[in-house]
Amino acid sequence: MAKAAIPKGTRDFGPDQMRGRNFIFDTLKSVFQTFGFQPIETPAMEKLETLTGKYGEEGDRLIFKIMARGEKLQRGIDKLTTNSATPLSVLSEDALRYDLTVPFARFVVQHRNELVFPFKRFQIQPVWRADRPQKGRYREFYQCDVDVIGSTSLLNEVELIQLVNSGFAKLGLADVTIRINNRKILAGLAEVADQTENFGTITVAIDKLDKIGIEGVEKELRENGIPENALAKISAVLALQGKTELGEMRKILAGSEIGQKGIDELAFMLDATQALGVNNAIPDFTLARGLDYYTGAIFEVTHNDFNSSICGGGRYDDLTGVFGLKDMSGVGVSFGADRIYDLMLDKDLFPKHTANSTELMFVNFGDTEAAHCMGLLKEIREAGINAEIYPDSAKMKKQMKYANDKQISFVAMVGDQEITSNTIKLKNMESGEQTSVSIQELIRVLVG
Amino acid sequence: MAKAAIPKGTRDFGPDQMRGRNFIFDTLKSVFQTFGFQPIETPAMEKLETLTGKYGEEGDRLIFKIMARGEKLQRGIDKLTTNSATPLSVLSEDALRYDLTVPFARFVVQHRNELVFPFKRFQIQPVWRADRPQKGRYREFYQCDVDVIGSTSLLNEVELIQLVNSGFAKLGLADVTIRINNRKILAGLAEVADQTENFGTITVAIDKLDKIGIEGVEKELRENGIPENALAKISAVLALQGKTELGEMRKILAGSEIGQKGIDELAFMLDATQALGVNNAIPDFTLARGLDYYTGAIFEVTHNDFNSSICGGGRYDDLTGVFGLKDMSGVGVSFGADRIYDLMLDKDLFPKHTANSTELMFVNFGDTEAAHCMGLLKEIREAGINAEIYPDSAKMKKQMKYANDKQISFVAMVGDQEITSNTIKLKNMESGEQTSVSIQELIRVLVG
Repeated sequence: MAKAAIPKGTRDFGPDQMRGRNFIFDTLKSVFQTFGFQPIETPAMEKLETLTGKYGEEGDRLIFKIMARGEKLQRGIDKLTTNSATPLSVLSEDALRYDLTVPFARFVVQHRNELVFPFKRFQIQPVWRADRPQKGRYREFYQCDVDVIGSTSLLNEVELIQLVNSGFAKLGLADVTIRINNRKILAGLAEVADQTENFGTITVAIDKLDKIGIEGVEKELRENGIPENALAKISAVLALQGKTELGEMRKILAGSEIGQKGIDELAFMLDATQALGVNNAIPDFTLARGLDYYTGAIFEVTHNDFNSSICGGGRYDDLTGVFGLKDMSGVGVSFGADRIYDLMLDKDLFPKHTANSTELMFVNFGDTEAAHCMGLLKEIREAGINAEIYPDSAKMKKQMKYANDKQISFVAMVGDQEITSNTIKLKNMESGEQTSVSIQELIRVLVG
Repeated sequence: MAKAAIPKGTRDFGPDQMRGRNFIFDTLKSVFQTFGFQPIETPAMEKLETLTGKYGEEGDRLIFKIMARGEKLQRGIDKLTTNSATPLSVLSEDALRYDLTVPFARFVVQHRNELVFPFKRFQIQPVWRADRPQKGRYREFYQCDVDVIGSTSLLNEVELIQLVNSGFAKLGLADVTIRINNRKILAGLAEVADQTENFGTITVAIDKLDKIGIEGVEKELRENGIPENALAKISAVLALQGKTELGEMRKILAGSEIGQKGIDELAFMLDATQALGVNNAIPDFTLARGLDYYTGAIFEVTHNDFNSSICGGGRYDDLTGVFGLKDMSGVGVSFGADRIYDLMLDKDLFPKHTANSTELMFVNFGDTEAAHCMGLLKEIREAGINAEIYPDSAKMKKQMKYANDKQISFVAMVGDQEITSNTIKLKNMESGEQTSVSIQELIRVLVG
């Protein structure tokens, strides 16, 4: 007999969790749409070659591969058997998507002749990673990405900052900070330190600042052969914080054209957002973001009660180049749905009842009464009320327990007397109050 | 360079298709909730042992398997290399779900202590099958299942029939026929034909009636060793149609207790639904349904303009038994989202604009004007209107083409003059009409 269990790192979502998750997704969707973004979906499976080499060596290892079938699988096994140096990729042609960014780039290139550019899309779908499961880290989790591609305008960055604030405010998590930096500033820093060829090394090290501190960053840079005079310039920048230092940063990057451009962009974003009443977007020159493809603005959002990132993103100039489409600059952010869920659960922010909950249950007193109730139910549902009848004429206690457990707000009782008088005995499950109502009155109470 | 392409049999969904698909899913969800059903979701991956052996030999072959990783994979390959008789399952522990029914049964058993029974759930998620792709048949497609488990009451069947009608009516596809039969009637038929041991063979043959005709069914039964006197009884039943024949059927099944029970159940369902105004549920003694696990009522829904099934289901008494939980009778239906989508597209039933479309675009005349528009946009979005600004100050023609292509209803133009007078020039993209309005007037028009 098969044991009822699921693969490690995956989860089932029951009705209560779904209510919370749908609240998050529905809220974010409606905010995305307010800003003119439109939904797309891509298949769970991508060709292995679409994904391979996009996430670094570690990422490649964590991609879930789909096993080939039939003859293809047999041919792969034969090759492996005869030559142990054969790569394991002969056993697989497709894989589960690892994020929504690479599939999005592939989508844009594949459909470039059908799409309207600038293309503003959002995408809310699961991704799969064979990470070691641990608290808050799953092998299947949802990403929630918003991107505009095909426009270099910084208005897109400004709108994404507004969108982030609007999204979190609607979720009841208004107390967030949006840290902003620009990869061009980091490139300028590498340039003035005469380390342009080590830009990647420097970015990777700075990205770890939160975890390993300034000494740790210096140690890593030193180990990677960055000379002391360059180190001094980098450390000075890591010590800078806040908008008041933009002028200071401009001086440090005096010799770098790209650095000045980065400062200009950052200054524009800060001015434009402040003019729109945004006061939680702050510059942070130590923000680096781990991903290779960012080339301009980068963002990271933290809730002020929660020390890890719940949203992040940035501008990329050449995400689609790897699929053969050049000059498609874009910018986007990704919301961490699972962390947001945990945070909202922690803060008890989910609405107790939503429009999706069952509002009314008819007690089942037997066949005759049930048949009468079915007619009433029909009218009640046509009025848009979520309602049900307990399907069996079980003991009253059992039926009431069901209504309680399912957090149903009202219970309707219809016996002989009610059938004769064409009324319904309506019990408010919270207050315990019982009233005798007509069906019209009942609908009025429940549509509220 | 990786080619921008997806695995065969899979699809991308762009904004237009998503609008249609979401219309279907949102409509069905709201109907399901009206009947007191609640959402659940299960992981895309299940343990291979959960799925294997549940879908027949052909089904097993079509399950997408996830390749093991690291040492597990290496051990599997070593075993295969040293012993060619090793089953290929050593290369895989998990697989993609093949339908929503087996994961639901697994879910119910795994969470039986947390669930409220009778448990009414719906589930809308993709499933994967390595079928040969062809028109209307995909390797990734959505299923849309509604089930109530933990109750034997026939009211559940009656409500599912109402739910099916309500769902299709809300989609604009009211013109459907719900054919109903009962596996107990088929069991009774096998019994009176003295072929109880061949019940499976008889069901499988009858299930093909639509495709191979009555002669084909007789041929298949004959080839499977069903004697002529039994064949005559079966053929007589296949010729019966319509409720008026229930009495006839009762006579044919006179000797079979289970057959009589089946007739009783069918009669109850027909009477109860007719009392509720349902007039498109008809008995069809030739309906068999392919799946093994059905034990009572079975349904199949066809649109009257469309010859294949767009929804179907039935009652099962022991779906959870394979995972160790007995006596959990349930009944459910599954909506074929992809067929429904094709049918609705064909009949042009999707709303042109939905609440999710972008309603307003501001033309971008340059930095100063754009900054002013960003302030207006903020107010407009706070009023719940989906609006955007073209991010670049591109040529007017290009911006208007964008609005047109994206089917945006209104375009707002704000130049020097409008900034001074604090007005907005608003163009209705359908009528071409232009008016000068205040922001309050604009909001009034668009919230309309």
